[in-house]
Amino acid sequence: MLKPFFYPRGIAVIGASREKDKPGHVIFKILLENCKKGILKANVYAVNPKADYILGERVYKSVLELPSDVDLGVVVVPAKIVPLVMEEVGKKGIKAVIIISAGFSEVGRRDLENKVVEIARKYGTRIIGPNCIGIFSPWSGLDTIFLPYYKELSTGKKAVSTPRPPKGFVALLSQSGAVGTAALDYMSGENIGLSYFVSFGNKADVDENELLEYLKNDEKTRVILLYIENIKNGRKFVEVASKVSLEKPIIVLKAGRTEAGKRAAASHTAAIAGVDEIYDAAFRRSGVIRAYDLEELFDLAKALSMQPPAKGPRVGIITDGGGAGVMATDMAEILGLKVPELKGETREELEKLKEKGVFPEFSQLGNPVDLTGSATTEMFVKATEILVRSDEIDIVVVLALHQVPGIPDPIELARKITMISRESRKPIIGVDTGWSEAAILEREEFDRRGVPSYPIPERAIKASYALYLYGKYLLEKNAFDSYIDRFFAWKEKFFGKTSSISSDF
Amino acid sequence: MLKPFFYPRGIAVIGASREKDKPGHVIFKILLENCKKGILKANVYAVNPKADYILGERVYKSVLELPSDVDLGVVVVPAKIVPLVMEEVGKKGIKAVIIISAGFSEVGRRDLENKVVEIARKYGTRIIGPNCIGIFSPWSGLDTIFLPYYKELSTGKKAVSTPRPPKGFVALLSQSGAVGTAALDYMSGENIGLSYFVSFGNKADVDENELLEYLKNDEKTRVILLYIENIKNGRKFVEVASKVSLEKPIIVLKAGRTEAGKRAAASHTAAIAGVDEIYDAAFRRSGVIRAYDLEELFDLAKALSMQPPAKGPRVGIITDGGGAGVMATDMAEILGLKVPELKGETREELEKLKEKGVFPEFSQLGNPVDLTGSATTEMFVKATEILVRSDEIDIVVVLALHQVPGIPDPIELARKITMISRESRKPIIGVDTGWSEAAILEREEFDRRGVPSYPIPERAIKASYALYLYGKYLLEKNAFDSYIDRFFAWKEKFFGKTSSISSDF
Repeated sequence: MLKPFFYPRGIAVIGASREKDKPGHVIFKILLENCKKGILKANVYAVNPKADYILGERVYKSVLELPSDVDLGVVVVPAKIVPLVMEEVGKKGIKAVIIISAGFSEVGRRDLENKVVEIARKYGTRIIGPNCIGIFSPWSGLDTIFLPYYKELSTGKKAVSTPRPPKGFVALLSQSGAVGTAALDYMSGENIGLSYFVSFGNKADVDENELLEYLKNDEKTRVILLYIENIKNGRKFVEVASKVSLEKPIIVLKAGRTEAGKRAAASHTAAIAGVDEIYDAAFRRSGVIRAYDLEELFDLAKALSMQPPAKGPRVGIITDGGGAGVMATDMAEILGLKVPELKGETREELEKLKEKGVFPEFSQLGNPVDLTGSATTEMFVKATEILVRSDEIDIVVVLALHQVPGIPDPIELARKITMISRESRKPIIGVDTGWSEAAILEREEFDRRGVPSYPIPERAIKASYALYLYGKYLLEKNAFDSYIDRFFAWKEKFFGKTSSISSDF
Repeated sequence: MLKPFFYPRGIAVIGASREKDKPGHVIFKILLENCKKGILKANVYAVNPKADYILGERVYKSVLELPSDVDLGVVVVPAKIVPLVMEEVGKKGIKAVIIISAGFSEVGRRDLENKVVEIARKYGTRIIGPNCIGIFSPWSGLDTIFLPYYKELSTGKKAVSTPRPPKGFVALLSQSGAVGTAALDYMSGENIGLSYFVSFGNKADVDENELLEYLKNDEKTRVILLYIENIKNGRKFVEVASKVSLEKPIIVLKAGRTEAGKRAAASHTAAIAGVDEIYDAAFRRSGVIRAYDLEELFDLAKALSMQPPAKGPRVGIITDGGGAGVMATDMAEILGLKVPELKGETREELEKLKEKGVFPEFSQLGNPVDLTGSATTEMFVKATEILVRSDEIDIVVVLALHQVPGIPDPIELARKITMISRESRKPIIGVDTGWSEAAILEREEFDRRGVPSYPIPERAIKASYALYLYGKYLLEKNAFDSYIDRFFAWKEKFFGKTSSISSDF
């Protein structure tokens, strides 16, 4: 049971320090602050044989002296002392420890790591780490990231350095601590909310499989992201991931794909990266979606947390910029999606609107539906409604470049498209290109109201592809409809009518 | 000769309008303003038979009445009137026109387009367009983009909608107007400076080949970006591009790569997109670098405008985040670059520093050079100096994740790395991940001082690959050293000791 890792009654920072820059200080300070703010509902204790008070708090000389409500130990002592600490932790009956300390198998000291695990097994203590940065959750206030929020630059300016993302529904599991913090920084900037972050380092005990199993039933977690350099127990992974994937999407970023990359991984986390094709097959079998870089990891996370999966590969593209439509079409076809020429009723409906003068004289309605530079907000709404209803299309991508005069207010356009999305079980994705205020406002409105949006067409199409792949897995497992029902029930519960995915509530 | 398009003495807006939202109004207004601000050194005239004054300026009833200094006409009348206007333009002896008007071959009216060209040929008038948005240059103040700078949202807020990038050295040629303005928006946000933007639409007369030839000798243009959906005269393109590539890099984004994409392109600019493999071969033969989306187009533009090309494919990676190093290594090897294990003198030099305690005990120096979370700014500087000097490495990628305590000021780190770059003829590229203040400040400092930087390792590696490909072309043509000499002479001339690439001077 991993619950003590996530919701402990009492937390002891073992190796708490008076020195400001030391992890043992930063962690204790942040936990204490979160406790005082009422975000963290747990008692926080410091253990250090050489200190009486840290930050005005009484310090325990030894683990054995700690109160009995301590469920979780955060270990920040030097590697060679960890076995000693683990004996005391075991005797005290503490059930879970996060070992932050490095200096184990990643630098050739597998012997020391094995010894630590042995002691833990003897007492039934569970370990996350060693060589990790532990856990952060904006929901529970638990935060063992030992990197301070700010840096004071040489100019005296304080700059946000290690931001924590807002509350949300994306879980992030990372074998690498640095990739983890980089990813948290990325999430914060993109305003993607977090449920739990777990950096599990050398995974001497708790590994990705157990974490996936735990998060499977976690209501706050809608999508699970996984950064790994290796998987030790592949068979188990396929078994676990296959089941978890039926409940919620897993997106993996697996490094160490090439020979040189594997060499680099081996010297990073002692990971034996294995043959990439085998990983690929394992991911496919278990419904795990693969991302190829951090940008894509979060692009896909946005799509899969905000929109239902797609029932098929047929993309309908609506645009006011022909070139953007061509680029989107190219990427779709390259990935294996389809951009079918519209026929039958759908086409008739669109052509009728053109005849009536609702769509411009020179609009092209074959798919992409190119409304040209004469496009208006109302035309986008009409075309989206038709494609969402069409049985020729499984995913609708709205490329609404804001520049055209007929879109006086890009926020209004985004809002209207998201309202169609709210009534629909077919996924919709938005795009506006660039970084002008108008572009950013349009995309923010899309995102805030549950339609994931992207600054270039290709990224939207990759996100569409993930919706297709995940839908395909669910269909194969006869789990599509039940997933969709749960997805919308969940959306209803957490968002009601607002549908905002990443606001800090 | 295309000079009148870029530096006209007098400009006539033919079809100038009193109605605020009409292109004929917006263009006239912007030109007039730029003229009054002293940015545009040309006289600006309005032509409209039905108006006496527009914006307080006298309006000419006909082209024939215009003063004789008019070199450039900007035509914004309905398509069917264009032939008539062209007759007058010809008789008046105006040598160049930009035809903004749409309604020609892109909607099946090739007959009308041919007629216009015929008239132009008779008088020796040159045409850019039709169906385009023309030219913008922050250097000359010429600006025929008919989309206003701001949008007034329904809340009353004014939001920047169509920003113009600052002065700079990247030229952008686009067959699509919408892709062009989206790209300008993107450039503005990324603070990439522009030399010239030309949207050439249906390219009834002046095409990409002539524009490339013109920009070949333009001192302000360091890199040429090209968005196209087709090339009409492939043989000529290879001939021209091969020569231009010896002077400056050309980066192309070619849409219509797939069957469905070609269908979309055909209905967009009447382009017959052709077999993508043939384009690929043509680009390779002529040294043209290919980008696959807008993000990549500008990523490569940054690298090729700021740094010299690479002499070979061997990348040296320095990092404080092992996982980032693994991901960079993977991408490098997948693209065809090498991340060789360091040996010989380079390795010795690095290992000595580790023995001396300059590098951390657990640092890994094989390549990636992983300085671990104990990395400091000074270690990054030392490692970069060694790799820049090493004859085992052709490109140095510095993955300096700012979070670690040993980098107290990420701006300072970036500055120190750029100072090494200034003394070196080997390309250096920077990375810091995320969108926190610290990450953005670090990347801005890199960029400002001429080391292109990126928010994820993979984008930096793609940029490295472009430096390698361009270097390879120059080496094959025996033009590497002379290019490098010119590149640094140009850098010296335009930046002196500041090296800033995109500031607005």
